[in-house]
Amino acid sequence: LASVDLNSDLGEGFGPYQIADDVSILSIVTSASVACGFHAGDPEIMHRTFLSAKERGVVVGAHPGFPDIVGFGRRRIPYSTGEIERMVAYQVGAAQAVAAYSGHAIRYVKPHGALANLAETERDVADAIASSIKAIDASLAFLGIALSQQVVSAESVGLKTISEVFADRGYDNCGRLLRRGTFGALIESPEEAAQHALSMIEEGAIIASDGKRLPTPIGSICVHSDTARSVAIARAVRAGLEGVGIRVAAFAAP
Amino acid sequence: LASVDLNSDLGEGFGPYQIADDVSILSIVTSASVACGFHAGDPEIMHRTFLSAKERGVVVGAHPGFPDIVGFGRRRIPYSTGEIERMVAYQVGAAQAVAAYSGHAIRYVKPHGALANLAETERDVADAIASSIKAIDASLAFLGIALSQQVVSAESVGLKTISEVFADRGYDNCGRLLRRGTFGALIESPEEAAQHALSMIEEGAIIASDGKRLPTPIGSICVHSDTARSVAIARAVRAGLEGVGIRVAAFAAP
Amino acid sequence: LASVDLNSDLGEGFGPYQIADDVSILSIVTSASVACGFHAGDPEIMHRTFLSAKERGVVVGAHPGFPDIVGFGRRRIPYSTGEIERMVAYQVGAAQAVAAYSGHAIRYVKPHGALANLAETERDVADAIASSIKAIDASLAFLGIALSQQVVSAESVGLKTISEVFADRGYDNCGRLLRRGTFGALIESPEEAAQHALSMIEEGAIIASDGKRLPTPIGSICVHSDTARSVAIARAVRAGLEGVGIRVAAFAAP
Amino acid sequence: LASVDLNSDLGEGFGPYQIADDVSILSIVTSASVACGFHAGDPEIMHRTFLSAKERGVVVGAHPGFPDIVGFGRRRIPYSTGEIERMVAYQVGAAQAVAAYSGHAIRYVKPHGALANLAETERDVADAIASSIKAIDASLAFLGIALSQQVVSAESVGLKTISEVFADRGYDNCGRLLRRGTFGALIESPEEAAQHALSMIEEGAIIASDGKRLPTPIGSICVHSDTARSVAIARAVRAGLEGVGIRVAAFAAP
Repeated sequence: LASVDLNSDLGEGFGPYQIADDVSILSIVTSASVACGFHAGDPEIMHRTFLSAKERGVVVGAHPGFPDIVGFGRRRIPYSTGEIERMVAYQVGAAQAVAAYSGHAIRYVKPHGALANLAETERDVADAIASSIKAIDASLAFLGIALSQQVVSAESVGLKTISEVFADRGYDNCGRLLRRGTFGALIESPEEAAQHALSMIEEGAIIASDGKRLPTPIGSICVHSDTARSVAIARAVRAGLEGVGIRVAAFAAP
Repeated sequence: LASVDLNSDLGEGFGPYQIADDVSILSIVTSASVACGFHAGDPEIMHRTFLSAKERGVVVGAHPGFPDIVGFGRRRIPYSTGEIERMVAYQVGAAQAVAAYSGHAIRYVKPHGALANLAETERDVADAIASSIKAIDASLAFLGIALSQQVVSAESVGLKTISEVFADRGYDNCGRLLRRGTFGALIESPEEAAQHALSMIEEGAIIASDGKRLPTPIGSICVHSDTARSVAIARAVRAGLEGVGIRVAAFAAP
Repeated sequence: LASVDLNSDLGEGFGPYQIADDVSILSIVTSASVACGFHAGDPEIMHRTFLSAKERGVVVGAHPGFPDIVGFGRRRIPYSTGEIERMVAYQVGAAQAVAAYSGHAIRYVKPHGALANLAETERDVADAIASSIKAIDASLAFLGIALSQQVVSAESVGLKTISEVFADRGYDNCGRLLRRGTFGALIESPEEAAQHALSMIEEGAIIASDGKRLPTPIGSICVHSDTARSVAIARAVRAGLEGVGIRVAAFAAP
Repeated sequence: LASVDLNSDLGEGFGPYQIADDVSILSIVTSASVACGFHAGDPEIMHRTFLSAKERGVVVGAHPGFPDIVGFGRRRIPYSTGEIERMVAYQVGAAQAVAAYSGHAIRYVKPHGALANLAETERDVADAIASSIKAIDASLAFLGIALSQQVVSAESVGLKTISEVFADRGYDNCGRLLRRGTFGALIESPEEAAQHALSMIEEGAIIASDGKRLPTPIGSICVHSDTARSVAIARAVRAGLEGVGIRVAAFAAP
């Protein structure tokens, strides 16, 4: 493998609030998935994040979620697939325009939280997301969870599709993330996260907690920005990859 | 004059609420300025409005306002010009994407409520709006209040700029709308509104309540959708124009 | 039976929006369940509704729902029972204070929409509502759906509990409301609604669409305010009861 | 002087966000002014804050502000005095009920941000706040800015009124807080803040940056919770007072 992308979800704040040390993370990753104002983010935070990303040569994507600031987009609010299509279109378009205003450009879409979790296993939700992106801008790439319905749908409508794995999360032997709260769900040691990411890249497979290998293309590694040691983890993951000669580079042109 | 546009502000609702009889108005006007979710509107209402407009061959524009659902965008909330630039970009981009999803296309931008009122007289606010539109899509036209700073700014950045007058509102002798509540501020009779509009078009001037003429290019006539007799007024204005051979047609291609 | 209460859900609007002709309904009913700002309502609408109710001698209750303006409180958003306890406390307290400011007083609580539907059948949700009311003001009465877990919970914590039936809705033979969209779910004729209400009062039972009788105490009849013929239905129901000598009076002192 | 209260504004967060280290501050202060959900706070955060305060014997007050989560209640949004009356009633009532649910009790009201700033100098806004509190619960105390219209209005309607000074902020020689951004506006050294507070208490006067003394009753000292060294400042202020034998105690019974 010549290169792999390193992405993180950023711009997660609202008004006076901010969750992560976005600037530090932007100095490490190659792609930033930016909240679009529905589960987090607002035009000001989006603008600042796009500016910071541009300065550092980081590619940006839109990170749409359910309209649920108080629940951070993590609650399964009942929406029809039609409503999901419109909310994705709205958020991606808003992000495209604010990015353009900031002198940057949205290159991909990655769903957030409960919307992403639903689309991981439910094909009709995954189809709604993919067809909405296709309808508004077929040149956008799709960044989705490896081995999920998300990537199946995105590929089926012809979007350039990139599969991601998580450096800092454990997997079950079906390739699903272990639920938060389960033993091994969160990998908190930078060294372990780096090794976990490197092994998955080298083997071309998700590696479950029980050691099972689930082969998958892997185009990007996700590191969370909102954990206690997120910056150290991001640095260790990048160093681990580069240490064995794997180039860390965005999947899209900046 | 060969032709003039007839526009109305539509899609003004939120969740279960709707203000106007949009479908009836869409059967009469040639351009619809659609709320973008900040002062009114949501992705569902925007989608339905774009579909209805498309069916009837009505051109659509984005109608951005202050983020103020409860105040309907009519309150002067203190925002910096930078914040105004980002909120306009966000809303126009969202509208472009939802319109594209709906098979339609945003052709112009017209500011709403307190944002429009500020930009009527304050050049820096007008500049913020114009430069934001220019930055995200220089092919968008600008529809603004005749003889306002809005149109001065839009023209100065090179946007295609259309000046509008109001059929159903009285003017003072500076060419400003009489404040709501003032005698003569609202023209409630369809016949009077039709005559008012026709006279302004024929004379190429805003006609103040005291009879003063203020010459201005007029590319569009606005009829409000939320008044008691809005549908009758829109019909009368259109009939009045067509009765003397003036073609009513959108200023932009659908 | 000496008397029965007639109630309606009112104050359902937001900012510039209003759904029903509240003033007309307030001239007919004896109790008004007022939205508290989470699914509908805001401090201004609440105040106006309390003033109108007071002028007409109508008793007022708090009508708490899920925080979901866009979904009108009708969506089942995942909340823990603890969160439900706090959201009920917050809304009831807000309503009590605004009512006091308006010179009126909240006498009861009736849950709204998805919150009410969940509490109809799920005992833990019903318990959360009842215990929250008990904790903040044990003198408040509870108005709930006849034969539901709502009334079981409210009675079990010692709240004065009133069971309501719906004049304008059909029932299945388990005593549950027919789902909207089902044949017979909505009773749109004022005469039929009046007869339906009168029969249930006279027989002391919910009368299902198939004729089955489900005996229950009935302390109040609900008429919806947001249907096309709501005012005519409310008038007919009241006239129907009074026509046979049943007094229509609030269950609580005004 | 036998004793003085030490207060801080707490519960300032929203959904997943939190600004201050509330638990540490609650171990030092004697009164906590808790955000009510309009500029910050939600039922969950309010509940947790009331529980923490109760455990530590800290008196709680309601801290109402403008409905402006994104602007943290610091923007001067145009509201009529009538609207201010209703928004204060709503928030205080909500806080009373959530506090009661949490086993605690609201003892006072202190306005927040732009609402407080307006009421500092505008008598009609101050009157609106005072009369709203009086209407809903005349037993509530009022905690306001020393030498402001706030306390004049509160006293004039008969509320128990406590004047506060700020340990960590500089004053001009009219007794007004120096604007943020001005030299000397923020006192960042715990030692200086402690000395500033102690001097004002001992002299019974606001001490301006230029040394001018403005005599005023002082019932409480406010320390901000959202500054970098807030916990150290709160500790130093308390230690400074107790070091000279001044008892730090709530002005209201817990």
